[in-house]
Amino acid sequence: MAAPSRNTCGLTERSVRERVPPLLNDLYQFTMAYAYWRAGRHQEPAVFELFFRDNPFGGGFSLFAGLHDCLLFLRSFRFSDEDVEFLRSVLPPATDPAFFQFLRGLDCSGVTVRSVPEGTVVFARVPLMEVAGPLAVVQLLETSLLCLVNYASLVCSNAARFRLAAGPRRRLLEMGLRRAQGPDGGLTASRYTHIGGFDLTSNVQAGFLFGIPVAGTMAHSYVTSFNSLEEVWPQTLAAANGDPEPVDVISLTKGWLSRVCELLGAEPEKIREGELAAFLSYAVAYPQNFLPVIDSYSVGCGLLNFCAVALTLCELGHRPVGVRLDSGDLCKQSVDVRRVFRLCSEHFSIPAFDSLIIVGTNNISEQSLAELNKKVKGVNVMVGVGTHLVTCTKQPSLGCVYKLVEVRGRPRMKISEDPEKSTVPGRKAVYRLVDMIHSLFSGVHQRLHKRRVYPHRHS
Amino acid sequence: MAAPSRNTCGLTERSVRERVPPLLNDLYQFTMAYAYWRAGRHQEPAVFELFFRDNPFGGGFSLFAGLHDCLLFLRSFRFSDEDVEFLRSVLPPATDPAFFQFLRGLDCSGVTVRSVPEGTVVFARVPLMEVAGPLAVVQLLETSLLCLVNYASLVCSNAARFRLAAGPRRRLLEMGLRRAQGPDGGLTASRYTHIGGFDLTSNVQAGFLFGIPVAGTMAHSYVTSFNSLEEVWPQTLAAANGDPEPVDVISLTKGWLSRVCELLGAEPEKIREGELAAFLSYAVAYPQNFLPVIDSYSVGCGLLNFCAVALTLCELGHRPVGVRLDSGDLCKQSVDVRRVFRLCSEHFSIPAFDSLIIVGTNNISEQSLAELNKKVKGVNVMVGVGTHLVTCTKQPSLGCVYKLVEVRGRPRMKISEDPEKSTVPGRKAVYRLVDMIHSLFSGVHQRLHKRRVYPHRHS
Repeated sequence: MAAPSRNTCGLTERSVRERVPPLLNDLYQFTMAYAYWRAGRHQEPAVFELFFRDNPFGGGFSLFAGLHDCLLFLRSFRFSDEDVEFLRSVLPPATDPAFFQFLRGLDCSGVTVRSVPEGTVVFARVPLMEVAGPLAVVQLLETSLLCLVNYASLVCSNAARFRLAAGPRRRLLEMGLRRAQGPDGGLTASRYTHIGGFDLTSNVQAGFLFGIPVAGTMAHSYVTSFNSLEEVWPQTLAAANGDPEPVDVISLTKGWLSRVCELLGAEPEKIREGELAAFLSYAVAYPQNFLPVIDSYSVGCGLLNFCAVALTLCELGHRPVGVRLDSGDLCKQSVDVRRVFRLCSEHFSIPAFDSLIIVGTNNISEQSLAELNKKVKGVNVMVGVGTHLVTCTKQPSLGCVYKLVEVRGRPRMKISEDPEKSTVPGRKAVYRLVDMIHSLFSGVHQRLHKRRVYPHRHS
Repeated sequence: MAAPSRNTCGLTERSVRERVPPLLNDLYQFTMAYAYWRAGRHQEPAVFELFFRDNPFGGGFSLFAGLHDCLLFLRSFRFSDEDVEFLRSVLPPATDPAFFQFLRGLDCSGVTVRSVPEGTVVFARVPLMEVAGPLAVVQLLETSLLCLVNYASLVCSNAARFRLAAGPRRRLLEMGLRRAQGPDGGLTASRYTHIGGFDLTSNVQAGFLFGIPVAGTMAHSYVTSFNSLEEVWPQTLAAANGDPEPVDVISLTKGWLSRVCELLGAEPEKIREGELAAFLSYAVAYPQNFLPVIDSYSVGCGLLNFCAVALTLCELGHRPVGVRLDSGDLCKQSVDVRRVFRLCSEHFSIPAFDSLIIVGTNNISEQSLAELNKKVKGVNVMVGVGTHLVTCTKQPSLGCVYKLVEVRGRPRMKISEDPEKSTVPGRKAVYRLVDMIHSLFSGVHQRLHKRRVYPHRHS
């Protein structure tokens, strides 16, 4: 078994043991283990292969992920007294008590894993992991290994497809925590979408554990919590040049607002004061990190308020960052917003407005991302993706299986009523003779190589 | 805040804290909390509502779940020094250090939750939870509460739909651990599909933590690991009547096999000896729990082997349980298998063969379950569901949102470019004037009432 460096990936053996306790397993693994033990076959050398039958998302490839966790799991695989007592209560009463003694002493010291490296581009029906060891032990590992590989590989592959749709340069932010299958699903998604090609995550814990860069600024609730400019506090801001005299930002912003309204032919009465207050309040707190969500009421209104506050910041020597769009037609809005930025930049001679960014976060799918990419090619739009990324809407499971291919040196095969469920018997060696794949997936692949976390063996 | 009884549901505050640490949160919750704090607004009383905008799966209802975990989460919500240090490293350098002191002292003692009871039938746009408390605190809770409610409610609702498709009597087994979004997703699925109407789970940890009945017998690997009858050990079995003289089961089974082949007009040479050995070996280990998977090679072959071994068990006074079908046309096979059982029962005068069960586990969806239910109405088929149940293929996310409805007693509203994203301002009271729902969902609802785990308040 390849030795994983502990803590290289923010997770320890202990935390994986809590996440994947040895009872987190299908009952039939235990009933089979007992039947092997009863027949005296539990120590027979056996080999299982882990693979999937079809590339996900109707695509031509997948990325293999989850290996690091599998190795931590194998290292921690041991039954406590409490585990064994519970198993005694669920297995048939006639089960020989000596079997529970056997379970109590089990570990994976006799298990060998051969695997493709974490993050490798892989294809259907190719063995991803080969798990060899005593028959009863390697049988008991099936469910946990599948559970650790299936979603990790699926979401990593999905991220790579988003990356391919976005092209190599557009910044991608993962923000699916609230839509994932619970907390651990969300954390796994943040971790493996980064390996698959996302630049940033909104998930702070993923930053803490895995060192992934985190990002995020403001939700609609922040905007709607404000009602009037009186709520802005402090109402002054110091200039970036160090001038100790704080400036009254309320009147400065009001001035910029009327100039912007004039420039764009908008009526200042239609402005929502609460939104202006929210933006200004946020800008006072974060003069160097101003990136508000501008569609809590309407993009038109939010854009005017943004420009007024951003111009105020610029006048004081600060540098606003950009805007977030969270509803409506992202392509059209991006173009409109960019046009207004350019207008302001030219009219007020504020070149900083040319480098403002737009973050789009409205229910982005792989398809809508590809479309956005085509329609707003030149526009610097960063994209945040949640639901479609982490739930893998197009195909929410990978379907890896774990099949017995050899016992006591003899190849084993399953046939089945569904021809595609039949297995290829015997241990296999995997070769990749043509290296074209590197040029096809260069962006994704490079990223993966950087992220590889521990030594491994090729199968 | 309603006080949850600790440990009533197998999870403790500590385990929820490990599962949902306070950094498992979107970064923008922290940037907003800082901006509120900076403006002196962090203590303002605020109210958020948690709801979804559309019933999932194109259906007419959902079940609300996840509340128990939310309450445990709220009780454990506290930042450690390490958490705060990490936040200091990701928030802008200009962030006032006093803010981190403020975070260090935060908890949910000022937070009040009003909620519909766990497991209630709920509808779109109705507040499921109302979270009231200091603005900065209730803002910080958004992501975690959504994460805990979204998948729990979705998978619980999905299970209820499978239950409605199956009718009230058919036994349903959840077996999706290997297809879920990792270990925690799998555990959540087992827990909430049981609340939604499933009888059993394959997940042993779910049995351990939540007391859900567990089930499972054998995978194909067990069958394919056997090659010949020589591997069966012991080759004898005692009769159920206590007769101490063990009987040679190999020759007994061979005898039954040739009688069954004769009855069904099958050629004994086509029998797979390895499969027969696997079945016999398992039967010797579990004479009262014999339920093998019979399609590792072909249902025809597996059925003959099953009958031979099951008749051997019956002759010795044991009671075989049934068969599992895992590939091909489940409807057709169920009818064929049931016909063979009846034939054996009549021909050999073994009435136990009439009460054998059939377990179907081949990629069952809500639709295929409804079809099965119609086609094999009278046949006792228990159904095991994995992928489509736990990943909620038809709609893999619920889309609950958490919206600000009131600050300092004043109603708040969001409008948005997408009209359906607009919110209804102000706190709400939820009434259900017509109680028809009870008769519509009686099966599901009764189950839920049994499972309710702690005291609550209605909103």
